[in-house]
Amino acid sequence: MIKAGIIGATGYAGEELVRLITQHPQAELVCLTSQSYAGKDYDEVYSSYSHLSYVCEEEDIEKMADICDVIFLALPHGVASKKINNGILERTRIIDLGADFRLQDIDTYEKWYTTHYSKDILPEAVYGLCEINRDKIKGRRIVANPGCYTTCSILSMYPLVKEGLIDNSSIIIDAKSGATGAGRGLSLANHYCELNESVKAYKIASHRHTPEIEEQLSYAAGEDIVINFTPHLIPMDRGILATCYANLKGKYSYADIKAVYEKYYGRERFIRLTNEGVFPETKWVKGSNFTDIGFAIDERTNRIIVIGALDNLFKGAAGQAVQNMNILFDIAENTGLDYVPIFPA
Amino acid sequence: MIKAGIIGATGYAGEELVRLITQHPQAELVCLTSQSYAGKDYDEVYSSYSHLSYVCEEEDIEKMADICDVIFLALPHGVASKKINNGILERTRIIDLGADFRLQDIDTYEKWYTTHYSKDILPEAVYGLCEINRDKIKGRRIVANPGCYTTCSILSMYPLVKEGLIDNSSIIIDAKSGATGAGRGLSLANHYCELNESVKAYKIASHRHTPEIEEQLSYAAGEDIVINFTPHLIPMDRGILATCYANLKGKYSYADIKAVYEKYYGRERFIRLTNEGVFPETKWVKGSNFTDIGFAIDERTNRIIVIGALDNLFKGAAGQAVQNMNILFDIAENTGLDYVPIFPA
Amino acid sequence: MIKAGIIGATGYAGEELVRLITQHPQAELVCLTSQSYAGKDYDEVYSSYSHLSYVCEEEDIEKMADICDVIFLALPHGVASKKINNGILERTRIIDLGADFRLQDIDTYEKWYTTHYSKDILPEAVYGLCEINRDKIKGRRIVANPGCYTTCSILSMYPLVKEGLIDNSSIIIDAKSGATGAGRGLSLANHYCELNESVKAYKIASHRHTPEIEEQLSYAAGEDIVINFTPHLIPMDRGILATCYANLKGKYSYADIKAVYEKYYGRERFIRLTNEGVFPETKWVKGSNFTDIGFAIDERTNRIIVIGALDNLFKGAAGQAVQNMNILFDIAENTGLDYVPIFPA
Amino acid sequence: MIKAGIIGATGYAGEELVRLITQHPQAELVCLTSQSYAGKDYDEVYSSYSHLSYVCEEEDIEKMADICDVIFLALPHGVASKKINNGILERTRIIDLGADFRLQDIDTYEKWYTTHYSKDILPEAVYGLCEINRDKIKGRRIVANPGCYTTCSILSMYPLVKEGLIDNSSIIIDAKSGATGAGRGLSLANHYCELNESVKAYKIASHRHTPEIEEQLSYAAGEDIVINFTPHLIPMDRGILATCYANLKGKYSYADIKAVYEKYYGRERFIRLTNEGVFPETKWVKGSNFTDIGFAIDERTNRIIVIGALDNLFKGAAGQAVQNMNILFDIAENTGLDYVPIFPA
Repeated sequence: MIKAGIIGATGYAGEELVRLITQHPQAELVCLTSQSYAGKDYDEVYSSYSHLSYVCEEEDIEKMADICDVIFLALPHGVASKKINNGILERTRIIDLGADFRLQDIDTYEKWYTTHYSKDILPEAVYGLCEINRDKIKGRRIVANPGCYTTCSILSMYPLVKEGLIDNSSIIIDAKSGATGAGRGLSLANHYCELNESVKAYKIASHRHTPEIEEQLSYAAGEDIVINFTPHLIPMDRGILATCYANLKGKYSYADIKAVYEKYYGRERFIRLTNEGVFPETKWVKGSNFTDIGFAIDERTNRIIVIGALDNLFKGAAGQAVQNMNILFDIAENTGLDYVPIFPA
Repeated sequence: MIKAGIIGATGYAGEELVRLITQHPQAELVCLTSQSYAGKDYDEVYSSYSHLSYVCEEEDIEKMADICDVIFLALPHGVASKKINNGILERTRIIDLGADFRLQDIDTYEKWYTTHYSKDILPEAVYGLCEINRDKIKGRRIVANPGCYTTCSILSMYPLVKEGLIDNSSIIIDAKSGATGAGRGLSLANHYCELNESVKAYKIASHRHTPEIEEQLSYAAGEDIVINFTPHLIPMDRGILATCYANLKGKYSYADIKAVYEKYYGRERFIRLTNEGVFPETKWVKGSNFTDIGFAIDERTNRIIVIGALDNLFKGAAGQAVQNMNILFDIAENTGLDYVPIFPA
Repeated sequence: MIKAGIIGATGYAGEELVRLITQHPQAELVCLTSQSYAGKDYDEVYSSYSHLSYVCEEEDIEKMADICDVIFLALPHGVASKKINNGILERTRIIDLGADFRLQDIDTYEKWYTTHYSKDILPEAVYGLCEINRDKIKGRRIVANPGCYTTCSILSMYPLVKEGLIDNSSIIIDAKSGATGAGRGLSLANHYCELNESVKAYKIASHRHTPEIEEQLSYAAGEDIVINFTPHLIPMDRGILATCYANLKGKYSYADIKAVYEKYYGRERFIRLTNEGVFPETKWVKGSNFTDIGFAIDERTNRIIVIGALDNLFKGAAGQAVQNMNILFDIAENTGLDYVPIFPA
Repeated sequence: MIKAGIIGATGYAGEELVRLITQHPQAELVCLTSQSYAGKDYDEVYSSYSHLSYVCEEEDIEKMADICDVIFLALPHGVASKKINNGILERTRIIDLGADFRLQDIDTYEKWYTTHYSKDILPEAVYGLCEINRDKIKGRRIVANPGCYTTCSILSMYPLVKEGLIDNSSIIIDAKSGATGAGRGLSLANHYCELNESVKAYKIASHRHTPEIEEQLSYAAGEDIVINFTPHLIPMDRGILATCYANLKGKYSYADIKAVYEKYYGRERFIRLTNEGVFPETKWVKGSNFTDIGFAIDERTNRIIVIGALDNLFKGAAGQAVQNMNILFDIAENTGLDYVPIFPA
């Protein structure tokens, strides 16, 4: 059994991780910590756990490094980069659900986020987008688990960029997320009556997942890519839908493009390509590790519209973190993740 | 592996059963049928299954009886009682999620429902409320899986009635259900904009789960009980909350009553009693087989208010059906059912 | 034009009042105050007002008393009773949307709420349930605007109690409210993902609207009435549904009871009685001042089930406050209130 | 009083029109018809009207032309073009909420819709986008009331196109709509549990509002414009948000662009421009005739992102229809439309 610890277990992503590790047949949860609820029973924080006896511990990463084979961090940005050091990495593996180790370009990180405190360790971190970087993840000590919007966006556009089929300067990603993406912290924007029955765009041309998408797509393209990314908040709990636009470089048929997607994703357990004329909807991936991807070509404008959908707490956070754990520990990648989506829910 | 078949697999309860059997470690789905979608791939009906290759078959219960160890029926009332006969029961087990075998009193059935076509078989059917009738379920050929409202209502009130603590003529159950309870059939009442952002009572003093609750509570009491049951429709997908009222026969403390509930449910895997001052909410049981139960005593009126909560598609339908299967086949009762509730979802 | 001021204009009830007064043909808003947002433009608090130029002022009730014909208070309990004194009442009228002047029994108030600071003024306050107390409201200087649950509950049960048709000790009110009832203050319980897709009971046997309902029904009955009142939180913005149960004292037909309701409400502009077999739903009253009332008699238990529905921010708060203003200033009671419910919304 | 008739009064847009005309101080509803509910009381269709005595009549447009000053049509496309003829237009005014008279290019209409049956009348119809075509609307006999998505999209982009500030081939409109946009007709897609808690794109590169937007923007540009338009369905009742992207032709500051929007909309009663850094949300326009518009410039890509928001049933349908009526009958344009948005709702 893999001994797992979770730091920041009381946020929504942390809780989803607690759930998945609890149900994982080859892992056990040996420690979960919470800054806000240290000392409390976990079921005081989430009554869904009243049949279990988890307790929120005070965080002591040094001690955890001794008893855990892997530690998941689910923390606000800027916190993880202060906690991780070589001494810890010598004793345990780190899977960081936050942003601190996702961007290899430190200037970009510090421009969009804050000071980085582990610049020495950063080069060692691998971007844990499993379907793209699987081979690079194996054997690493630290994995940067991708963001929710970014997982959905990159997986949707990667084959097109990698194969050079689109004008890379034309990429626009219009994304829609459920409210769990904003976390459990109180704010007027996430107060029930303020979020319910409305839709809005936010952080227009300024959301921090933008450089993350750009960095990864740039790697794929072999050139710098700058995009527009606009997130929207949807009155629902879970799910991200990314509607991606790009100008095709030439004339391609649906079959041409489908073949490209099949080339990259045809054998992937957790990516499902929809049939022609069918498009992903978030309800069909909820509670699962799937990313569904479909597309249409508009012959009038010669643009391609790619739609990606995933569950932001699952494949967009905790599920992919477990997938990364499975890769790190060399067990079947779908272990503990083979859930059929739950519907209606 | 238990070979399972599902008749009526494309309704919401049927689909939940498909999901649970798919993920069950000791059962396999060998046949699923649908009247409306026969011949279609199951993922045309539910895109959540696009990674699997289920096909909706034409129903042929005779053939299914040969290849299935157990057949689940998820059909409108009046249909199952026409399909089941001794020849089938000699070859397979039946777990009926519909109402046809729930009421032992045929007059009551025919008054509230329709003509019953298997009166000879009815006495053999057991009411599959696992926590109450576990021992009676073992070895049976046919199990009547309880209704969603009834499971929640009976489990909430059973200890009080069984122990004679309340005035049985005073029972009022005010229940609230999510929209999945109304099924997938189209109707104006379940059209999005009609159901959203509103709450209503329906079938006041006339809902068919009333006699089902009454029959079971009457068994427990050893006398005929007549109740008021009022269902309400809530703008959410899943969940039932039953708020139950009754006059206490004497003065009891919280601890007195809690001890009674502990006596009946203290060792139950799937019933969780809340602590004093804490009450069940449907979100804490969603996606799980749990029924959460809590109560308060109002000293001013000497009434007890018991709150029960469950997931109507899970413990209220498919989950309990699987639990019944586990009992019938003598495997651990929680096999394939040990899910932590999914939240937020 | 009636010159109106609003103290506490940035809560949900306060904002609804701002909206109704803005659209009122015989009133004008001369001053609105907010403790939290003093000095800010009102459209920074509610962008829906960006076409108007309201500003949140610092509260100065003495000054307001000089310029306002009427001041509405929308404040937490315990605050209004400190602000109101005879000097103010000599200069202006007060309509208090809070609880401080609703209960005439000071002991009850102080038991359920807090210390009362205007005991001398309390006897002068009238309970502003317009349809019941219309004649008493005229000419008063201070009106206690009823609570949302209480308006719905009392109007639903009043004719039965007044006419002595039910066993008054058997009254149970199971009420369901949308989330605006909890206000705009941040709390985990009202965080979007916590409230969405779930239903719960709260303040069981302890909600403060209980004594308010009891006091008014006791007046109607001419004897002390103690009830059970259980509020529930529903994932929707607006609306209250009260499902009320009572044992009938004798055998009554639907027509008998309907005649009684017609006697009391048949000529009321803002109470609509549903036809037999039709029951109120909150969507049919949303955005209006209506209370819809319907009922059924269960002959099996000889109980009556009465269903009442209203919009908690409208008839349950701001609308009734305007109705009280209209009565106080002797203009047509429906002035500025004659809205058809908005649907779907 | 303007005598108004409504054909197709039982759909959501029709009902909103009934509501607005009922509350309009200078219009009265003299006839409302419904194919599905002819002969029924209107409150059997919408219980919100139980205090009024409207009856659904059989449609007889010839007779209506005699008694109505204006007839509103709220019908599926292809129906209106069969009903309207010169004889009718000689006796009454027509405001058509459907698509039949919106496109002046008949080939485009017949390509995207169906055969057109009033080609002779079409040139006389004016596109009733009030803020753009006000002067052309006056004196007309027939007004084509714009679509919901199109009103939002055109108003958002018009100043940029009119002033030639953007590359017209780069326009992408990613729109999000509440479920009322899909109407009251039953379909699995609009069944509560199917639409709730999910988001999807639909009619990608094929929605019929595309050519409508294109035709109007082409008029403004003086050249043919082809765009991408992607509608999405959001789990809420009302509201449209259009997120519009275009490449700026040169370098412009926020102030430059704001000045252009002010030039076109600064004096418009029903268009509200948000301040820098503030963006429209559908909740701030719900229940009102407002279109809120805001924008950001992304200096990294030199794209402008314009966000427009309106209530699809109000400004996107019935409200604009009333606005057109007001223009036609030369009364103040905001008569009967001066509602503050209702919130939370």
